[in-house]
Amino acid sequence: MPKEEILDPQGKAVVRALDRIGVSGVSDVRQGKRFVLEVDDSVSREDLERVASTLLANTVIEDFAIEVDGEEK
Amino acid sequence: MPKEEILDPQGKAVVRALDRIGVSGVSDVRQGKRFVLEVDDSVSREDLERVASTLLANTVIEDFAIEVDGEEK
Repeated sequence: MPKEEILDPQGKAVVRALDRIGVSGVSDVRQGKRFVLEVDDSVSREDLERVASTLLANTVIEDFAIEVDGEEK
Repeated sequence: MPKEEILDPQGKAVVRALDRIGVSGVSDVRQGKRFVLEVDDSVSREDLERVASTLLANTVIEDFAIEVDGEEK
């Protein structure tokens, strides 16, 4: 997701569009990316942190969070 | 996220790039979008379903899921 201090024009456009479809009560929208990875047991959480920070996220402007589904290692 | 039957060239490119940074064990990557909305109590889950299906997701090629943080209504 874009960091708090980063402007998100796509999110702002969504807020304005919500008015047009008759939904009020939404004060802010932020748009980011989501990646779903299928991994085997050889991939550690540290590997995932490295993948996220070097390849998937631009850490200058984006924060990331990692969730692991299925059996925990 | 792109539906199962939809090709995801961005995800495939990530799989190939993972080899280059020395991470094996990732069999599949799919890339989608994530929206974080700040809403007040006037916004029902039905409103959110409508926003997701009409405005945020292209339901021809994408599935969506809604998670509500904070107090449930």
